[in-house]
Amino acid sequence: VNHATPNPILARWQRLVIVGPGLLGSSFALALRAAGYSGRIVGVARSRETLDAAKAVGAIDTGHDSIDAAFGEEHTGDELVILGVPLSAFAHCFKQLAAHERPGRVLTDLGSTKASVIADCRRYYPAPQRFVPAHPMAGSELQGPQHAQATLFRGRPCVVCPDEHTDADALDAARATWALTGAKVLTMNPFDHDRQVAAISHLPHLLAVLLCNTVEQVGGLQLASTGFAGASRLASSNPPMRADILEANRNEIAEVLDRFAKELNTLRGELRKGQRDDLLQRMNAAKQMRDGWDASAG
Amino acid sequence: VNHATPNPILARWQRLVIVGPGLLGSSFALALRAAGYSGRIVGVARSRETLDAAKAVGAIDTGHDSIDAAFGEEHTGDELVILGVPLSAFAHCFKQLAAHERPGRVLTDLGSTKASVIADCRRYYPAPQRFVPAHPMAGSELQGPQHAQATLFRGRPCVVCPDEHTDADALDAARATWALTGAKVLTMNPFDHDRQVAAISHLPHLLAVLLCNTVEQVGGLQLASTGFAGASRLASSNPPMRADILEANRNEIAEVLDRFAKELNTLRGELRKGQRDDLLQRMNAAKQMRDGWDASAG
Repeated sequence: VNHATPNPILARWQRLVIVGPGLLGSSFALALRAAGYSGRIVGVARSRETLDAAKAVGAIDTGHDSIDAAFGEEHTGDELVILGVPLSAFAHCFKQLAAHERPGRVLTDLGSTKASVIADCRRYYPAPQRFVPAHPMAGSELQGPQHAQATLFRGRPCVVCPDEHTDADALDAARATWALTGAKVLTMNPFDHDRQVAAISHLPHLLAVLLCNTVEQVGGLQLASTGFAGASRLASSNPPMRADILEANRNEIAEVLDRFAKELNTLRGELRKGQRDDLLQRMNAAKQMRDGWDASAG
Repeated sequence: VNHATPNPILARWQRLVIVGPGLLGSSFALALRAAGYSGRIVGVARSRETLDAAKAVGAIDTGHDSIDAAFGEEHTGDELVILGVPLSAFAHCFKQLAAHERPGRVLTDLGSTKASVIADCRRYYPAPQRFVPAHPMAGSELQGPQHAQATLFRGRPCVVCPDEHTDADALDAARATWALTGAKVLTMNPFDHDRQVAAISHLPHLLAVLLCNTVEQVGGLQLASTGFAGASRLASSNPPMRADILEANRNEIAEVLDRFAKELNTLRGELRKGQRDDLLQRMNAAKQMRDGWDASAG
């Protein structure tokens, strides 16, 4: 929906700079366009292909192959910089951005973990108070700007992780902009966030990988149907990006895997001993939780 | 698609008897109606609600609350009996059917495991050579005839598990009938079947249950999105039905869980030691397998 009168928060941004206009970064840009943003959108990516694809779907107006190139030109007015790069590239980006620091800039990001990104920002960027760490809980196993959708964030949680140093104006502006993508904006501290995503997001991915590893050994792929399709889908995610997440959130994920392994071992005992009532109780609890979530999440 | 000239295999069945016209049994009936079957379809279920719902969607013409009632009336001609009951009810059904045994009958089923069903048949039914064990790999977390679809089996594997005693005519007739539902009919021995479904079907369900159990402990449900939705979907399955499967296929599932636990422990070590290359290799292998299957399964 294009608004006749532009939203004040959108009117504030003279330009958006999407560093890493992949699936999420390009979807962010398309969502703001759909919300009525009419300013300039600049993309930064090393790959010419990515920039061309992001232009082709209307996510960016112009593209540059480096942060230096994008921020070298003269520019006045407020800008929002969105970092949509892999977790291992944040340190490099903050270093590059530091050379072009300017007061009218607010930064946010799309990273899957928050403590490591915040540490990189504090270490390399001179104005960390204007960085508003964010994690939109949306995505797809399809990669790249060609799959971007203006509605990708609609109804999905977006966690924002400020701390006591975060600038109040930057926080309000980033939250208001995120809300315009249709995301449900939540505020949480980065350590709670990282522990919870280890369970709700990183664990399911690893289970899908281990499921495929196990089926590879036992066989049965010719019998696979919709159940396997849904359970294994996350194994199709981008492995290097996932390796970054495992590294950045290693301790939290290890702790969640320990808990999972403990539950698994208990279940194996229940199964071997034929403890039908215990198995039923476990399955009923899971179903109740899952159905309740499904009903409330729509 | 209704055929002007009825298919010879469909013309053979003077009636179909669906014992347990739930989601799968009713979908089977609707699929054969769509393929041109114009004979009578009889449903057997204890619950009046189930019979009414199966009638409402057009899956059955008449309903009976017991096998005795359904087979008490006089009947001539060939009939196909489909057993769509929970695994724990097969013994009882075969006992009841034994009292009404007649030569023109072929039986098939929809059970998720095959060795236990075959054992029940041999033990209680006087003509096990005319029972053609089958397992269509289709379903949904939605239960009941009200969710039945004529297309539920289309393109899905349906495993048929004959042995050296199976009557050749009954086998051909059952396979041909299954093919008319749109399923891809495979033939496999029951032990291979039970081992492979433990990996491809029963393991994913247990992983979804354990995922929910773990998230319940750690928290994070407010951050759940499409990834969790897909990974946890099977936890919404019917717990008593699943408890039957765990009991009937206990040994094969326990063995698959042992393998899974071994893979999980190796991965935990790789994660703790930061063995990025090993983690990448594991994730690449899983992605390659999953993407390859997805491309070939459509």
